[in-house]
Amino acid sequence: MKSYLKTISIDTKKPMEFIDITDAVKSAFGESEIREGLLNVYSNHTTASVTIAEKCEKLQKDMEEFLENAVPSGTYLHDEDTIDGRPNGRMHLMALYMNASETVPVSSGEMMLGQWQSIFFAELDGPREGRKVFVKVIGS
Amino acid sequence: MKSYLKTISIDTKKPMEFIDITDAVKSAFGESEIREGLLNVYSNHTTASVTIAEKCEKLQKDMEEFLENAVPSGTYLHDEDTIDGRPNGRMHLMALYMNASETVPVSSGEMMLGQWQSIFFAELDGPREGRKVFVKVIGS
Amino acid sequence: MKSYLKTISIDTKKPMEFIDITDAVKSAFGESEIREGLLNVYSNHTTASVTIAEKCEKLQKDMEEFLENAVPSGTYLHDEDTIDGRPNGRMHLMALYMNASETVPVSSGEMMLGQWQSIFFAELDGPREGRKVFVKVIGS
Repeated sequence: MKSYLKTISIDTKKPMEFIDITDAVKSAFGESEIREGLLNVYSNHTTASVTIAEKCEKLQKDMEEFLENAVPSGTYLHDEDTIDGRPNGRMHLMALYMNASETVPVSSGEMMLGQWQSIFFAELDGPREGRKVFVKVIGS
Repeated sequence: MKSYLKTISIDTKKPMEFIDITDAVKSAFGESEIREGLLNVYSNHTTASVTIAEKCEKLQKDMEEFLENAVPSGTYLHDEDTIDGRPNGRMHLMALYMNASETVPVSSGEMMLGQWQSIFFAELDGPREGRKVFVKVIGS
Repeated sequence: MKSYLKTISIDTKKPMEFIDITDAVKSAFGESEIREGLLNVYSNHTTASVTIAEKCEKLQKDMEEFLENAVPSGTYLHDEDTIDGRPNGRMHLMALYMNASETVPVSSGEMMLGQWQSIFFAELDGPREGRKVFVKVIGS
């Protein structure tokens, strides 16, 4: 069995931001030289997720507005735990809509992404420097 | 390491539809002849997801009604991007509740599904012909 | 390829309860003696999920309150299917916010959990005895 790990480092610029990382993931996949297996894209954070969606500026704005409406602004208990002056209970709850990771099948040397599928790093509590995403590919 | 890929093709009949694909996934798993590993069920689409839930007609209706209420009907920015006359911003947002894939452990020649767990293809923007789900099994 | 399966059994005490299982998962991981691969944490149930979040008593209370508000109390069609006197349509809908499993990369003999990431078993329809979580590690 072969395996390959690549760490993608991301500086986010806005409080909420869907960042397309498909090219970086594909590049890591190419370096892995794995042709059959599974590829896991993993966010190392609790207020930033990985999600697969269509890439389209207007849709990413819809997604941001949807999450802002779905998790009302206001005061959350966790806001009292803030250590850096940024109460972020609300951002942790937005993360419930997505996952820490997505796993994509690899076959015949291709990541099996659909025509409209891009892989996003979803920053929910930015801006932050040095966010980390791991791309782990295992297989043969 | 062994690996196996099976493509399941699905024609959906309704705008929203939870389709039980457990039997097709189990069939692919049997063909894989893998006894220890991981099985990934992956939707190749951005307005159709894979989710694990209890199979029960009334529950699937509850799930449809819940998603319809959770993502209000109305106009979304992405609706302006429509290329086939079907504005579907709302359906993309429903997909935030689920994932592109689910990964199930395989042990002693069995998929470790629980007694009440079935695997569903969740069509959110149907009806559509030729939806694709990949079943990728890797292991030994 | 090596693989390892560990079953974690959990008795839950409350109707809704986020139980930190990170230590049990890490223990299973250590027993696997796998240094490169993927680790899948899988809930064997349809009203209990696996999710990764920051561990913090106040945040877990926020998460419980959020789910209770997001899925209104009331009557659901699935409530008519109850077999043990506990109508639980609402709890199945809460499960839409999370997944049956999370998959974590393993590299250089470490689970790649972030500094603030803990793994939770999310009981949505407790209390229940003998809930099962599978930890499956595959790799080399």
